[in-house]
Amino acid sequence: MKTKAIFYHAGCPVCIAAEQNVADALDPSRYDIEVVHLGTDNSRLSEAESAGVKSVPALVMDGAAFHINFGAGIEALK
Amino acid sequence: MKTKAIFYHAGCPVCIAAEQNVADALDPSRYDIEVVHLGTDNSRLSEAESAGVKSVPALVMDGAAFHINFGAGIEALK
Repeated sequence: MKTKAIFYHAGCPVCIAAEQNVADALDPSRYDIEVVHLGTDNSRLSEAESAGVKSVPALVMDGAAFHINFGAGIEALK
Repeated sequence: MKTKAIFYHAGCPVCIAAEQNVADALDPSRYDIEVVHLGTDNSRLSEAESAGVKSVPALVMDGAAFHINFGAGIEALK
């Protein structure tokens, strides 16, 4: 069974670079990767915060949040 | 031909978590992944700095540095 990996972003240049490099580099045979744009789909904000996301871009895997560089604080997306 | 991806860390708990999740999740069919411990191999520090690494853990792919969470500033490793 594949592990779920969720990449949260907000469309910022830092986010796009991280998506095109880090998120796209994940092994698709082991990970089921979902990309969520919190700027346009802010119904997912509470889920992201519950997973520990403090800024975007961030990758949530196995219940842990990994923040990649720094695009925008999650507070700015509310 | 595979793309080179270098994961720089310093053995800190944040680094280990990032290595076990993000670095290990990269697709081995597309990426040739090297793990460099800057705490024990500080001859690689200048190379890491040249690639734009400001803190560890960081992943350098396609010439771009992606900092993951924040374990230690690179200045602390000198």
